[in-house]
Amino acid sequence: MKKWEIAVIPGDGIGKEVVPAALDVLKAVADVHGGISFSFTEFPWSCDYYMEHGKMMPDDGLETLRNFDAIFLGAVGNPKLVPDHISLWGLLLKIRREFEQVINIRPAKYFRGLSSPLAEPREFDFIVVRENSEGEYSEIGGRIHRGEDEIAIQNAVFTRKGTERAMRYAFELARKRKRHVTSATKSNGIFHTMPFWDEVFADVKRDYPDVATASYHIDALAAFFVTRPHTFDVVVASNLFGDILTDLGGAIMGSIGIAPAANINVNGKYPSMFEPVHGSAPDIYGQGIANPIGQIWTAKLMLDHFGEEEIGALLLQTIEDVAADGIKTPDLGGTATTKEVTEEICRRLRKRG
Amino acid sequence: MKKWEIAVIPGDGIGKEVVPAALDVLKAVADVHGGISFSFTEFPWSCDYYMEHGKMMPDDGLETLRNFDAIFLGAVGNPKLVPDHISLWGLLLKIRREFEQVINIRPAKYFRGLSSPLAEPREFDFIVVRENSEGEYSEIGGRIHRGEDEIAIQNAVFTRKGTERAMRYAFELARKRKRHVTSATKSNGIFHTMPFWDEVFADVKRDYPDVATASYHIDALAAFFVTRPHTFDVVVASNLFGDILTDLGGAIMGSIGIAPAANINVNGKYPSMFEPVHGSAPDIYGQGIANPIGQIWTAKLMLDHFGEEEIGALLLQTIEDVAADGIKTPDLGGTATTKEVTEEICRRLRKRG
Ligand SMILES: CC(C)[C@H](C(=O)O)[C@@H](O)C(=O)O
Ligand SMILES: CC(C)[C@H](C(=O)O)[C@@H](O)C(=O)O
Repeated sequence: MKKWEIAVIPGDGIGKEVVPAALDVLKAVADVHGGISFSFTEFPWSCDYYMEHGKMMPDDGLETLRNFDAIFLGAVGNPKLVPDHISLWGLLLKIRREFEQVINIRPAKYFRGLSSPLAEPREFDFIVVRENSEGEYSEIGGRIHRGEDEIAIQNAVFTRKGTERAMRYAFELARKRKRHVTSATKSNGIFHTMPFWDEVFADVKRDYPDVATASYHIDALAAFFVTRPHTFDVVVASNLFGDILTDLGGAIMGSIGIAPAANINVNGKYPSMFEPVHGSAPDIYGQGIANPIGQIWTAKLMLDHFGEEEIGALLLQTIEDVAADGIKTPDLGGTATTKEVTEEICRRLRKRG
Repeated sequence: MKKWEIAVIPGDGIGKEVVPAALDVLKAVADVHGGISFSFTEFPWSCDYYMEHGKMMPDDGLETLRNFDAIFLGAVGNPKLVPDHISLWGLLLKIRREFEQVINIRPAKYFRGLSSPLAEPREFDFIVVRENSEGEYSEIGGRIHRGEDEIAIQNAVFTRKGTERAMRYAFELARKRKRHVTSATKSNGIFHTMPFWDEVFADVKRDYPDVATASYHIDALAAFFVTRPHTFDVVVASNLFGDILTDLGGAIMGSIGIAPAANINVNGKYPSMFEPVHGSAPDIYGQGIANPIGQIWTAKLMLDHFGEEEIGALLLQTIEDVAADGIKTPDLGGTATTKEVTEEICRRLRKRG
């Protein structure tokens, strides 16, 4: 029996509430499925840690994480204590970058029992494949002059390798699904990078004649996520476009609080990292009402990654059943606590077991 | 009596259907309001023009436009004939740039009679002030190497002047409205430009102590446009973020087909340009079913710009009444043609006269 070694970083705010919840669920999964077992090692790296140590994680933090099978992260950021660009670069973005987690996977689906903000939600079920290593998220750029004359420059850098890799990942994923890939572009404007993006897409597409495609400019595509989300299967997007689209994916599901994500190291050199889309929500932290679904669904993505897709599917089914039965946190219109939702999911998993 | 000289560029696709519709409405406005009169001069600059002349407009096109009081444009682009980056740079973006139309104004409001895709739309009514001259839309960047090694780079350039100008415009506008400005940022990530954006916002805000503010990262803000659009008044955004947010604004209204826009030259040196958010929709062109509301609402923005705010308000009211009475094109769930919607608006304007 494989024992999966998991580094657990609850992080900040509600990360500290929803991560323990998701660990309880993973324990329940392990209890009922003889074939799977986990060992969790927790690290307190966070803005609180920064206040004490002047850094978000120890200098050998990455070395420490490196030997785990996966990293399970809650949320990072508490702008009242540490400016976001420090906390995020010191932990979340650092891990994504250093561990070559070049792909970010973010599913969105119509969830029974959630009141979607959409009037007539059809049963949408899509995955955004976000390029996670380059593009608009580059360190290149800076600022010059002060006061009236100041100029700030940010470079977006798209490589053939990085772009193609994200697209191939999307096409491969589509083959396991409905064989449709939508490209998020913006080649009608001015960007030197986007006609390039389109050309790479056209090249990659040629290798997947069995997969249908579409291509929309990001502005129109964002609108389509609202007006016809059921028409998407796999959507491939640059780092920034993927960032925006996946929050929208959360919004149309009914809450950003349920959206899961996985940062995938595709070359197998480093662990992948699993973290929900939502942030640390310092405003509701401590009340015990944080929605654990995003983190628990993220645990499902980790199970999938370990090849335990059947158990993953069962877990997602259970989450959805519990929501459909009205056991939901206040952000979803329910009255349940984090704990009640979690316990109900665990109870049903054990019962089904 | 002031006679407004208007350069009319229907452009491509449905631009050729909705621009004449909006001109009919403006004629009706002039007929009933003795104090206002228009002279329209039409220019056929478009992708068709490109096919004949190898350019989107004549070499002295800008010189010609320069002396008009305003430019009234339909939509540009027909990728089957001319690649978008050529058609748009040759006309739309060229005019925006050369005529220093540094601000793009895009209102979104809950429209009676439209089925919003939102389940419980509250009465939202906001305006996005989009920086329209710089930011992510810069010519700087390019491509190097071929094949496997190719790299594409795009520079985003934010100047103090451009950023501050957009923000001041937003604050001034808010003073005429509900005194609330939301800033679209993304300073939690990596962008050198966004902490800069935040700093400028903080500086400008100091001059408007009577205006309340909020600031959200673009990913969260896009989601909020779906989950709580009624909480916004004026939203100020960079060129790209504004582009995405305003298509979303169209989506939550029920159709991108109704969203209006104005490209404002703030220094009074050149004409401003009025063009709806929607594109040329070549797929539905020629059927007589294009939704004219975006173009007609855009005419209302032009009336506002001419200081005819009272007539503008009446016009918007009339558009909304007609929609509420079910006289709508198919994209809004109705069965009316472009012509029927337009005639009904004209009829009511003349009747109200
Ligand atoms: C056509 C395109 C270049 C343009 C833009 O991105 O500005 C359009 O999307 C708009 O919003 O007016
Ligand atoms: C926190 C922030 C840097 C991050 C990003 O932009 O990637 C977040 O929005 C996300 O989507 O994971």
